[in-house]
Amino acid sequence: MIKQIEGGVTAAKGFMAAGVEAGVKYKNRKDMAMVYSTMPCVAAGTFTSNVVKAAPVLWDKKIVEESPYVQAVVVNSGIANACTGKQGMDCCAAESRCAGELLGIPEEAVLVASTGVIGMQMPVDRLQEGIRKLVQEKSDSLAAGLEAAQAIMTTDTLPKQIAVEVTIGGRTVTLGGMCKGSGMIHPNMCTMLGFLTTDVCISKEMLQKALRADVVDSFNMISVDGDTSTNDTLLVLANGLAGNEKITAEGEDYDTFCEALHFVTTYLARKMAGDGEGATALIEAKVIGAACKEDARILAKSVICSSLTKAAVFGHDANFGRILCALGYSGVQFDPDQVDLYFQGKNGKMHIFGDGTACDYSEEEATRILSEPEVTILADMHMGDGEAVAWGCDLSYDYVKINADYRS
Amino acid sequence: MIKQIEGGVTAAKGFMAAGVEAGVKYKNRKDMAMVYSTMPCVAAGTFTSNVVKAAPVLWDKKIVEESPYVQAVVVNSGIANACTGKQGMDCCAAESRCAGELLGIPEEAVLVASTGVIGMQMPVDRLQEGIRKLVQEKSDSLAAGLEAAQAIMTTDTLPKQIAVEVTIGGRTVTLGGMCKGSGMIHPNMCTMLGFLTTDVCISKEMLQKALRADVVDSFNMISVDGDTSTNDTLLVLANGLAGNEKITAEGEDYDTFCEALHFVTTYLARKMAGDGEGATALIEAKVIGAACKEDARILAKSVICSSLTKAAVFGHDANFGRILCALGYSGVQFDPDQVDLYFQGKNGKMHIFGDGTACDYSEEEATRILSEPEVTILADMHMGDGEAVAWGCDLSYDYVKINADYRS
Repeated sequence: MIKQIEGGVTAAKGFMAAGVEAGVKYKNRKDMAMVYSTMPCVAAGTFTSNVVKAAPVLWDKKIVEESPYVQAVVVNSGIANACTGKQGMDCCAAESRCAGELLGIPEEAVLVASTGVIGMQMPVDRLQEGIRKLVQEKSDSLAAGLEAAQAIMTTDTLPKQIAVEVTIGGRTVTLGGMCKGSGMIHPNMCTMLGFLTTDVCISKEMLQKALRADVVDSFNMISVDGDTSTNDTLLVLANGLAGNEKITAEGEDYDTFCEALHFVTTYLARKMAGDGEGATALIEAKVIGAACKEDARILAKSVICSSLTKAAVFGHDANFGRILCALGYSGVQFDPDQVDLYFQGKNGKMHIFGDGTACDYSEEEATRILSEPEVTILADMHMGDGEAVAWGCDLSYDYVKINADYRS
Repeated sequence: MIKQIEGGVTAAKGFMAAGVEAGVKYKNRKDMAMVYSTMPCVAAGTFTSNVVKAAPVLWDKKIVEESPYVQAVVVNSGIANACTGKQGMDCCAAESRCAGELLGIPEEAVLVASTGVIGMQMPVDRLQEGIRKLVQEKSDSLAAGLEAAQAIMTTDTLPKQIAVEVTIGGRTVTLGGMCKGSGMIHPNMCTMLGFLTTDVCISKEMLQKALRADVVDSFNMISVDGDTSTNDTLLVLANGLAGNEKITAEGEDYDTFCEALHFVTTYLARKMAGDGEGATALIEAKVIGAACKEDARILAKSVICSSLTKAAVFGHDANFGRILCALGYSGVQFDPDQVDLYFQGKNGKMHIFGDGTACDYSEEEATRILSEPEVTILADMHMGDGEAVAWGCDLSYDYVKINADYRS
């Protein structure tokens, strides 16, 4: 039984957070965040598959793999610290050293993350000043968690956070998280920036295993624009304060934790897709009846990645041919004459294509469904029992506006 | 020596064309075209790799493979005749029968092609009326070739045609062509609609071989929006009237023909990319120094397919990080620290990234280059001698506008 509760990264026992204005690049808005655990945590992470990896990605991969424990994450928005060479790596080291000293923990216990413009060097002094403020202001309040979620935003229009409770081994375990998305979102092995905190007691190996298995059907199933970022980072910190018997193998406790994890990651992934740059609607592509699960994933992602489908949803235009077209070029083999397509909204489901031709549907009714803030496209391939869901957003004038002049 | 001459599909000896208003879907504009050869032709074709294939694609594949010769192509714009089931195939048969009767040739000598909205059924009577007009008005004038090129346009802003002359075996051989592109352009095995006519004397096998080899580096290297259409069709008709000794094997004559073919296809592919829906600039991505040719192709295509790179070019913003990012997620392995990036315009070349960091370039100068109607992005990977060029266009408000309400 998963129970959604208030809050985000500070919901779990022993976690503090802060969000402050550091003037890294933006003016007059929060642009640095910290997550801190009063107890050492095991950490797991998944990172971008892009060959061009930002400095903090390289830094965190090493820490997650080699460090016995971690206790803090320092994040900035505005500059991505990507394509910054040695100077970029030096900056990560300086941030970790500064946070480590001020928090009284080893610098190897500090993770860093950045999001923003690629290719620009970081203002190390301002980051250090920001870390000082973060350390002073950190708090375990729910408000502090929200401030952290706000500070990591770039072109996001809303902070994204969630927290849930589950019972594991008779103890209440809390899992919270925050993320930011918006543009350059086509995660591959993880998302732009996501941070999860939990008081569950679990081994590092099982935490990494749970995370790796989870992203395949959560963050890896969303796309805003098909561009896989240089900075994608998803981190989860577990400090064990829930007091449950340590999860060290598969079993009921592990499964319960995985369910809670999936609830949180799917919630955040959907929020990220729905708040894509310029988006006016969340597009959910659900594929059922595919030959296998992997085919279903490929088909669903192809639909939410199609610029033409995205533009049609923005125009509330039931141009289903573009959906069939996107299924058709996905690389998966199928017989178009066997496919059934539906639009699904809050008030029901509408059959739009079957037996190889358009159904006799009402354009008016279709436009009504396509005008809802969440549009579901359902494709039944009638080939097997493979199912998958992917999430994206529509393509609007504002996407172009935001990205034609992002650096100014 | 390839000599560009005036005209398009009627430039080669023995070819006639026409473009007329048939009211298939559009009003008050030409929407049907015909290409006709006074002599039987060998034909070759490449077609969409999309699993969802429009009826005319299925029809033409069969004709190209099985028919001993062809003599005419009938094309309409407005409706794609895709996702139209048996009724769609019946329509192709009706068109071929009608054209065959009126032209006095077997119906198996008639190819058909369609472009426009997917999922809508075709008005067969209007098509037949259109074919009647086309047969009446067909002419071997250059003007008739241009009218055909106009009639196949959808959201294209300009007709696209070219003709060249080469000498093969002491004879002057002419090759002409026309195409349409605009949206749903991400050809895979060929382009949206392209028609080439030539009076060269060549065997069907060598014609098909030349075409198949050519598209890999011409039409398959362009993208407007990443959507591979259901209708992509590239046809070439050769009637032998140039009187050269028949090309039946590789050799000097074949090579000369291939060079002329490549000149024509590359010209048309560039025009198609530069006239992408809503485009204000042609983007040329040139990759050199890749480990192999295939890597170079993948890298170049990844750059021109990146929505963020396209939006940055629209905004004349030298946001090179997006280019590196697109190279990085292409799937090709490389060391980012070894890559050199340049912007290239009419007045020179500008080094923007090298040694893993941004070069000390002038933003003003970069903006000037990025404001030109043709922008070249040059990436030197320093790994080998693989080279490739891909063509795309910027992403503008008008792309969204055109596609948010295409069917109205």
